[in-house]
Amino acid sequence: MDKDRTEAFSDGIFTIAITLMILEFKVPDRAAANSNGELVRALLGLWPSLLAFLISFVTILVMWVNHHGFFTLLKEVDRRLLYANGFLLLIVTMLPFPTATLAQHLQTPAAKAAAVFYCGMFVLVSIGYNLMYMAGARQRLVRDRACERVMSRVRNAYRFGFLWYSLAAVVAAFHALAGVIICSLLWLLWARLDYSTR
Amino acid sequence: MDKDRTEAFSDGIFTIAITLMILEFKVPDRAAANSNGELVRALLGLWPSLLAFLISFVTILVMWVNHHGFFTLLKEVDRRLLYANGFLLLIVTMLPFPTATLAQHLQTPAAKAAAVFYCGMFVLVSIGYNLMYMAGARQRLVRDRACERVMSRVRNAYRFGFLWYSLAAVVAAFHALAGVIICSLLWLLWARLDYSTR
Amino acid sequence: MDKDRTEAFSDGIFTIAITLMILEFKVPDRAAANSNGELVRALLGLWPSLLAFLISFVTILVMWVNHHGFFTLLKEVDRRLLYANGFLLLIVTMLPFPTATLAQHLQTPAAKAAAVFYCGMFVLVSIGYNLMYMAGARQRLVRDRACERVMSRVRNAYRFGFLWYSLAAVVAAFHALAGVIICSLLWLLWARLDYSTR
Amino acid sequence: MDKDRTEAFSDGIFTIAITLMILEFKVPDRAAANSNGELVRALLGLWPSLLAFLISFVTILVMWVNHHGFFTLLKEVDRRLLYANGFLLLIVTMLPFPTATLAQHLQTPAAKAAAVFYCGMFVLVSIGYNLMYMAGARQRLVRDRACERVMSRVRNAYRFGFLWYSLAAVVAAFHALAGVIICSLLWLLWARLDYSTR
Repeated sequence: MDKDRTEAFSDGIFTIAITLMILEFKVPDRAAANSNGELVRALLGLWPSLLAFLISFVTILVMWVNHHGFFTLLKEVDRRLLYANGFLLLIVTMLPFPTATLAQHLQTPAAKAAAVFYCGMFVLVSIGYNLMYMAGARQRLVRDRACERVMSRVRNAYRFGFLWYSLAAVVAAFHALAGVIICSLLWLLWARLDYSTR
Repeated sequence: MDKDRTEAFSDGIFTIAITLMILEFKVPDRAAANSNGELVRALLGLWPSLLAFLISFVTILVMWVNHHGFFTLLKEVDRRLLYANGFLLLIVTMLPFPTATLAQHLQTPAAKAAAVFYCGMFVLVSIGYNLMYMAGARQRLVRDRACERVMSRVRNAYRFGFLWYSLAAVVAAFHALAGVIICSLLWLLWARLDYSTR
Repeated sequence: MDKDRTEAFSDGIFTIAITLMILEFKVPDRAAANSNGELVRALLGLWPSLLAFLISFVTILVMWVNHHGFFTLLKEVDRRLLYANGFLLLIVTMLPFPTATLAQHLQTPAAKAAAVFYCGMFVLVSIGYNLMYMAGARQRLVRDRACERVMSRVRNAYRFGFLWYSLAAVVAAFHALAGVIICSLLWLLWARLDYSTR
Repeated sequence: MDKDRTEAFSDGIFTIAITLMILEFKVPDRAAANSNGELVRALLGLWPSLLAFLISFVTILVMWVNHHGFFTLLKEVDRRLLYANGFLLLIVTMLPFPTATLAQHLQTPAAKAAAVFYCGMFVLVSIGYNLMYMAGARQRLVRDRACERVMSRVRNAYRFGFLWYSLAAVVAAFHALAGVIICSLLWLLWARLDYSTR
């Protein structure tokens, strides 16, 4: 099992998951929007869909950059890493579903359950990254000493991510939107996490 | 973050966005089309879907060619360019939704709102290209002097695109179909924009 | 615009179009299939969907092999070939829609209209291949003399394909299933068409 | 027809098939889940969807690894192998449909029919692998002597797979869940099947 092919397969999953989410936007039908004003209101009423879409899109995009960054530290992959990566891809593939659930229910009495479900899925994502870290951070797989130093920075970020997403899920049980916003803030960390050895 | 991988990811998004649009074509069901004549009429009645699909397909295809052309001018990418490119991909990913909205409503009293929404999305696309230009047109990233000369031609086209799409959105507020047609005409510009340094 | 990237983009379109067709299979819902016997009957009743899916799958697969074969004859691509290829991809992208229409209506009084629509889409596909041939069969683009000889074999097959699919569309107007079967038989030609210069 | 392109096309099909399955998860709508408790119950009630998704995801992932492993044994591909591979891809493309059928009906009186359908599709998958083996295990295509020894190990596994999936389909006719679980267990074999020549 070579590294290039694993990355190509992972890229494919990330790309399709990120694109499929748009299918969850339902066009307001003719009965519900029978004038220009009504259509504008119907489209504006989709803001929970847009919010959920934007957060998921940005997060998956940044996660994909991180996934690539992590693989640059490795010189090869083994079966254990493949399984950890497979678990991560499983969760990424599922992301369009909690995104759609959140979009449907963010303005209903079921908002908190939807928000906990959404944030909880990101807890699973961060578990996936931590498993991938644990499978990859072994001398046999890491490229060289410089990469090992980067690895410890990465480990701290991944652990922090797990705690942060768990916090978001807990907050979401009390205030749906607050939990989702906390959840979304973490892309600032992922966007800045540096995998270069310089 | 290397250039090849960024291009491959972008290609994936363009390809999937362009293909997903076909899912918005709804097969006339058996109740609505219970004879050959009725099915023919039902299929012919899908002309707004077909128009929206064709315009979006051609425009995305030509945009993809332009995206590739732009990247040939660069020798590398940095974080800022990645973010601009990410914004552009976000908008491209969303295109199937305004396309479906336009198809649903082009023949209803809500046509103007749908057309403004559709043209407005292309305003966002052109903002994406202008951001990508601003992020890429720096000496550190551009390949050589010849590419810099091409860059100024590209800048003018991108700025003109922003103005043209804005015009289309304004026209669409008064006459839906006219706005959409103005919007679609611009692919003639994109199809002819030359990124070669000869 | 280089040849490799054009092929990669085309591959992406073919792959996604071929896979999206499965989404047109609708799972029999619980009301309609509330016992094992009813579910079996409901699944068996999907034979028009299966037939349409199989024909489209095999045909797209074989067309993709032909698309690749054709490109092996070329040493480069130009703008004109890109447009012909773009038209072909446009039609390929649309194939899931007539496939679903045929599946829905093959057993209804609207069968003939659906079958003409289905076969007619393959007429458009064959026009796409003929345009691609005309754009590609020029001395500047063809690799060498040996490839030119192959080209004339290819031209005859593409022209024959256009006539055959037109015949299928005409027959479908009188007998839906007969037209579809004639349409499907042509993959035997595409599967045997030889692009090698030996 | 070269080997690399065949693998790339196959990868594309595997990737999209594995990702499309998430679309079968239907978001509980606002009427059915109008409080946090109801949404939680509705989401928990999706366990048959989750079970079907997980089994299919893991199995397709492991099959993809096997597909790649098999191709490492070959030095080239011919037309016969292409057809066998095409049949396998056809079945893989269809997998989201029996997965959705099982998810819909695992808790209804039609569970056994759905489970037989699901397991039966994996019988077809294993027939695809056996056909691919028969097309590939010829001296002209296999890379070298070492690969031939691996081939006989592979043949036994593929034959065993066919028998095991057939058994699962038979069991499913008497006890739906038991059949599905037997079906899922086989990924343990695929995950361990070794294609290396060391």
